[in-house]
Formats: sequence, C-alpha cells, structure tokens
Amino acid sequence: MNPFVENTIIVINGQQVDAKTASIPVFDRGFLYGDSLYEVARTYGGKALFMSEHLDRLFESAKLARMQLSQSKEEYRRQMEASIQAFRALPGQSQSEAYCRIIVTRGAGKIGFGLNCVMTPTQYVILTQKLEPPSAEQFQKGFKYRVVERFRNHPNATDPAMKSGNYLNSLLAFLEAGDGFDDALLCNADGHLTEGTTFNIFYVKNGIVVTSPLDIGILDGLTRRATLELAKKLKIPVREVRFPKERLYEADEVFMTSTIKEVFPVTKVDQHTIAKGKPGPITEKLNQAFRKEVQTWLA
Amino acid sequence: MNPFVENTIIVINGQQVDAKTASIPVFDRGFLYGDSLYEVARTYGGKALFMSEHLDRLFESAKLARMQLSQSKEEYRRQMEASIQAFRALPGQSQSEAYCRIIVTRGAGKIGFGLNCVMTPTQYVILTQKLEPPSAEQFQKGFKYRVVERFRNHPNATDPAMKSGNYLNSLLAFLEAGDGFDDALLCNADGHLTEGTTFNIFYVKNGIVVTSPLDIGILDGLTRRATLELAKKLKIPVREVRFPKERLYEADEVFMTSTIKEVFPVTKVDQHTIAKGKPGPITEKLNQAFRKEVQTWLA
Repeated sequence: MNPFVENTIIVINGQQVDAKTASIPVFDRGFLYGDSLYEVARTYGGKALFMSEHLDRLFESAKLARMQLSQSKEEYRRQMEASIQAFRALPGQSQSEAYCRIIVTRGAGKIGFGLNCVMTPTQYVILTQKLEPPSAEQFQKGFKYRVVERFRNHPNATDPAMKSGNYLNSLLAFLEAGDGFDDALLCNADGHLTEGTTFNIFYVKNGIVVTSPLDIGILDGLTRRATLELAKKLKIPVREVRFPKERLYEADEVFMTSTIKEVFPVTKVDQHTIAKGKPGPITEKLNQAFRKEVQTWLA
Repeated sequence: MNPFVENTIIVINGQQVDAKTASIPVFDRGFLYGDSLYEVARTYGGKALFMSEHLDRLFESAKLARMQLSQSKEEYRRQMEASIQAFRALPGQSQSEAYCRIIVTRGAGKIGFGLNCVMTPTQYVILTQKLEPPSAEQFQKGFKYRVVERFRNHPNATDPAMKSGNYLNSLLAFLEAGDGFDDALLCNADGHLTEGTTFNIFYVKNGIVVTSPLDIGILDGLTRRATLELAKKLKIPVREVRFPKERLYEADEVFMTSTIKEVFPVTKVDQHTIAKGKPGPITEKLNQAFRKEVQTWLA
C-alpha cells in the first residue's frame, strides 16, 4: 500500500500493530502541538549502539519539556530491542541493520496547554526499519552543505538540546539548502555556526579539531561525544569554541557526526570546496577509529 | 470513552469519521515533525467569523512553510462550514457556538526531510467542538499573566507569524507561568514584549493604546487587526512599538486579544495589579465595540 511501511515494525504503547494502518489519535499532543520527544538508535550486527545513552538523553529531553514519562528506561530499552529482533525476523532481513526510532508524546486530551488537559499517560511509538546508511562511494564524495540564512532556534526559546517533535526549524533549513546541496548548516543570531539539521559539525585546521560548544545551543550528539573522546585518545588536539562560517571555508577538513552517518566527510560548504573534494586524513582516521571502537562499546 | 471527544465532529481529508477513533498515520509529518499548519475559527449565532481572513492566513503560513496545500480556500471553507453545521445538528447543540480548528499537514511519507520523502498530498483534519469562551464573571476578574524567562521564537528561526504545529515554545512558556497565573507572556532576546502563548497583548497609558509591531515576530492576529481598526474608528490613538515588560506594570490598562476571547482584560502582570484588578474603560469600550461590530462583519 504505502511503500514507506514495507519491512517496518511499529509498536504503539507496547503493542505491535500493522505498520500499514498504524495510527495515533488526532487528539494526541504529538500531532496537535509537536509535544513529543524522540531518539534514534542504530544497530551494528543487530545490536543497538549507545542504548543507555539514548535513553538517558530521552529522559533529559523529558526534563527540558517537563514531561513525565510513563515507562522506565529499562522498559523502553526492552521494547526497542524486541522491535529490532522482530524486524530482523522479517523475511530477508536477518542480516539487515536496523534504524530504531522511539517517539514519546505527552498523551492525548482536550485542546489546551494545561497539563489538566492531558487525559492519558504519555504515549509511545517505536518504529523500526532497515537502516540506510550512506555508501562507501558517498563517503568518498562527501556531503555538500549550505549555511542557510535561517537561524538555529535559540536555546532559551526552543532548546535544540531537547530532541522534540518541533522540527520545522531544521526542516525549513533543509528546504532552504536547495538544489546542489545535501543538507543545511545553521548559525545563531550572533553569526556563530551551531550545527546541521540533524547532525553536529566539525572542522580541522592545522591538525586541530574544532567544533561548536554545547552551550551555544545544540544537540549533545552521542557521536559528537564519542568523536571528541576518540580524538583525545588519538592525541588529536580538540577545541570546543564558537566560530563563524568562514572558518569552514578556510578549513583543511570539515566533517559531520550523527548516529546514522557516524563520522562523515563534508567536501563543500556554500561555494567553497574543502580538502580538494575528498575525505581528509583526520576525518578518515576518526571514522576508522569510530567503526573499530563500536565493537568495544557493544561488548 | 474519551471525555474530550464528546460532541465533536472530526473530518479527515473530506470524510467525517468517528471522533472516538479518529486518527492519523504515524508516518504523517504532522506527527513526526510538527510539520503542520492550523487555524481556529469561532462562530457567532452559528456563523463563523473572519473565514476569508483565517484561510488567507493559512495560505500565508503555507508560504512560510513552503507547503503546497491540496485544496482551495473555497473547499477548506466549505468543509469547515459543513462541520459547524454537523456539530450544531448534534443533540442539544443547536444553540451552541462552535470552535472549529483546521490542521493541515504536509502529508505522510518516509522518514526524512526532503520533499521527495512525502508520498501523499497534504492531509487535513477539521475538528469542531462546543466553544468554551470565558464567562462574564471571568471578564470582570480579568486574566493574570506571568512574563516568563523563556524567549519567543525568533522570526528568522521559527517564525511566530506561521501558525504551525510546532507549539513547544508556547506550551513550555505556559507551563513556566505556573500556579497563580492564567497564562504566559514572552519577550524576545532583546527584552521586548512580543505576545502571549496564543494571543496578542496591548496596554493603555494616558489614553493611548500600545501593542507590539508585527515585525518584532508575532502572529498577525485577526482580533488584533480588528481591534486596531476599531480603535481608529473610535478615535483612540494607537501605537505599534517595541516595549519592555515594565510598561505593562505601569499601564493604566492591559488587555489581550484572541479569536476565542475577543478583547479581554488583564488585571495582573507578574506581581503587579493593573487597573485596580478590574477591566479598564478603554478595554470595555473596545470589547463592546468588537461584539457590536461582529454582526456587521458577518453580514
């Protein structure tokens, strides 16, 4: 019926449902207000990486959103891991890696903001599909990003550290990037680079790795965190400082980090080709170190 | 089953459905990303006010969101008016006024921001219920508002002029207002008052009516617009200028405007009692003028 629901496992409030008809009430606040939080985990050899960290962050987001979650971290984890197993049990998927998204909403209820309008516990949806990571060929080409005019949401308005269902800021930045670009980077109102739509951003200059600090108002990316640790381990100097977009234009290398794409080269920013359009040596080193370390983290 | 769906008409993509089970696919982008727009109209004597203006604004929001709507203004209007009639045909509702909300989403599709991920036309939900306006007693008491620490979203980040399903900025401001307050007012990062969570804000000083200008980054409220016109007609001087929250503390009167609450007194802002805790004379004059003019606007 809908091609996007093929080979998909959907669990709603602990019950597996038919992905073709999986739906939520129109009175769910996730639909009415984007009053929801989410996390995305991916698997390696069928095992989800950083599950504790993802669920810790879900609960951190819930604090920022003043949302009382209905299940424990252990229960969400159990259900996400069961969903991944159910996905791999589908015909032809036993060797597939999984993309596993959990969405938690504040619940359903009357129209209105007050918590007394909410008449059900938080609802949750777990959506598991085949992971579609970028190919080795795409890695060699790298991503092309536009620094868009749109600002990142201010952390004191709608905090980017809270992974919520309010995604128009990123979505409209993505659309603004337009033809010839893979995605968008956003600055804040002060002209400092913050992050991409769904990823963190780094550059390398004279052997030093630089990325925006958390207190600028960005997501505390788990792959960002792991990359910073790996750099320290590899004795690559790291700075977390504010910087304008021009630093990317003049960088020796630029790379991004995200759960799905790991450590991935960026070869163009606006009209500027970076590292002669190829993955730089430190990017490759960090990417390889990350992939190697995955086995240790999963053990 | 759910008390909030009693006496409610729900129409999804042109089809009336059972409100108790009315639902949207989990793959709808309104649910995944808050990638939706909305308008709320109310009736007077069963007739919806400012329908053309509401639908013009829906299409303005769609431009800001780069969303291509699937139906014409005339068709949305026809369906909203039919929903209102269906609501008033419910047992006991023939004399009720209606609250009519239309929500339009970009459609359902694959996870991902690109428009090539969207695999259905825009979906729309029309939700019609009994209007619950504040009582005459509440009018005499007025509203108590807190100016919260949270900033209004910046118009170049997520534009408040776009009535979208990204409502966490307002929702979290509402929760921050807390006990003893009816709702929240938000400033921008420059410390200027912008608007309330779902309404515009005005004050009166020495006979002059003051409100924040549209270009500060607020909703172009239809009741705000009507109130400014009525003030001019009544020869009450009006200024649209930026101002800090202290102006409200020192004001002779403060009032708010919204579709549901029309022109409504505010009698407390933070710890400051306004107009001795009663509706001020200009607030009452504008409220009465608004109610009187409704009949002309509907004619």
